[in-house]
Amino acid sequence: MENKEDFSEKVIFPVGPKAPDDIAKNFIGTVYLHALVPYDSPLKHPISHVVFEPRCRNNWHKHPGGQILLVTGGRGWYQEEGKDARELHTGDVVEILPDIKHWHGAAADSWFAHIAMEADVLAGPTQWLEPVTDEQYDKLR
Amino acid sequence: MENKEDFSEKVIFPVGPKAPDDIAKNFIGTVYLHALVPYDSPLKHPISHVVFEPRCRNNWHKHPGGQILLVTGGRGWYQEEGKDARELHTGDVVEILPDIKHWHGAAADSWFAHIAMEADVLAGPTQWLEPVTDEQYDKLR
Repeated sequence: MENKEDFSEKVIFPVGPKAPDDIAKNFIGTVYLHALVPYDSPLKHPISHVVFEPRCRNNWHKHPGGQILLVTGGRGWYQEEGKDARELHTGDVVEILPDIKHWHGAAADSWFAHIAMEADVLAGPTQWLEPVTDEQYDKLR
Repeated sequence: MENKEDFSEKVIFPVGPKAPDDIAKNFIGTVYLHALVPYDSPLKHPISHVVFEPRCRNNWHKHPGGQILLVTGGRGWYQEEGKDARELHTGDVVEILPDIKHWHGAAADSWFAHIAMEADVLAGPTQWLEPVTDEQYDKLR
């Protein structure tokens, strides 16, 4: 399997350090975060570059203001509750409507990277829910 | 000089068709637009992939809600009124504060591509101003 350094060289935005604990606790596996637009920017429009190691995924969650993902590298998954998972590749866009329960993360055999931003930051914080179990995750191919 | 097809193959998001006249009229040279998140999305957060042919640039303008650029390919310029132009390359981020008079576009010898989004769409429409003259543009190297 590809290592982090090889993947980093193929992605056009930086692979940041490991996410801090208050974010990492909502993921299974290791996630790396780089702020493209920081939280304290006067624009009040944070944008992150999120890199997932293989098998890494976030827990089920909801964004009160919705979220947009722009895929920058690797292969991954996006799944809304009650629907089939959607396979994601470089260049794909995911529009996540407000309060839709979902998760996203890397494929089992690939690193995965996306830009992430909330569509309306002022709508309120992300609601974190239960993990995506190995049983759920291992059904994906 | 590289042609559009060769440049397209190196950029991770699509190069769209030529911009419609109501947008193109605010540019010198040919600009191509692809909607990553369309204007009519329920998220109300449009995001465009903007591709400039060499020498193409937009007129001086201001965004009442500010704007964010994420550079996806080529070499280009960003300039705020009264300041030196900043040279832009793949992976660069530009945070443009509300009501700052500025322009952006390709270098003379390179195609250029960036993701563009307003930081606060509800703040109001872009205010378009005068063109960047050849005299201003040709000072850049």
